[in-house]
Amino acid sequence: MLSVFSDEYFMKEAYKEAIIAFEEGEVPVGAVVVCQNRIIAKAHNQTERLNDSTAHAEMIALTSAFNHLGGKYLPDCSLYVTLEPCVMCAGASFWAQIVKLVYGASDPKRGFDRLSENILHPKTKVIPGIMESECRYLIDDFFRRVREK
Amino acid sequence: MLSVFSDEYFMKEAYKEAIIAFEEGEVPVGAVVVCQNRIIAKAHNQTERLNDSTAHAEMIALTSAFNHLGGKYLPDCSLYVTLEPCVMCAGASFWAQIVKLVYGASDPKRGFDRLSENILHPKTKVIPGIMESECRYLIDDFFRRVREK
Repeated sequence: MLSVFSDEYFMKEAYKEAIIAFEEGEVPVGAVVVCQNRIIAKAHNQTERLNDSTAHAEMIALTSAFNHLGGKYLPDCSLYVTLEPCVMCAGASFWAQIVKLVYGASDPKRGFDRLSENILHPKTKVIPGIMESECRYLIDDFFRRVREK
Repeated sequence: MLSVFSDEYFMKEAYKEAIIAFEEGEVPVGAVVVCQNRIIAKAHNQTERLNDSTAHAEMIALTSAFNHLGGKYLPDCSLYVTLEPCVMCAGASFWAQIVKLVYGASDPKRGFDRLSENILHPKTKVIPGIMESECRYLIDDFFRRVREK
């Protein structure tokens, strides 16, 4: 059973968003923003639907969280995302000043960590590898199907 | 006189956007996206107005350009921006696959170049320093006024 308010609990919610993306034919990445143990924003990748290659789950979730809280920073918030953020999304988390970044599968090709850890805000704690195998399988399965088409 | 279709010409248009930001009390950064010598998107920083620290001129201009062209990449487009893009915006330009990035003032504190040139798409040509002194003066003047308040 999942403990309420654990990293696994919130990652499971991000994973549900990734599943929605998968079903919509989008690269299956999902994200949630959590503030004081409450989910204040959920989003999934919408690059195809919006015809916008910057419409990543994290960007949409962060903007939704700003709207929800009415402030331009998210200093008490954590970002959960099923795939290691790219440089753009890690840079967005810097501006948001999030306190914790939790991700599932790593992304050796486009993940922020391949370039520099300094992309993140100094106060952002990083927790990688939560539900890693499920998140990885979903991405791999998506691209396998794309290649078979 | 400005030559039509020169980098200075398009940077002047980005600068006009930065002036609008200045007048609205925003950090004065402006951007335009140019496709085949035509401006298809203009934007200025709106972090205060939208209460969103990711609402940078470049992000808004790129999304506007995607909407205009109806495609999720901008392979024939150039991005003109008055200040060196941050990591987030440089990362966005990677996804957009822009062919040319032209900027005015450098940003030694938050500019993408302080971390890695590899943030940009391999095909993106960079031209820094167009209208550098005007762009720099505008930013410095803005922060001087903020400090004096």
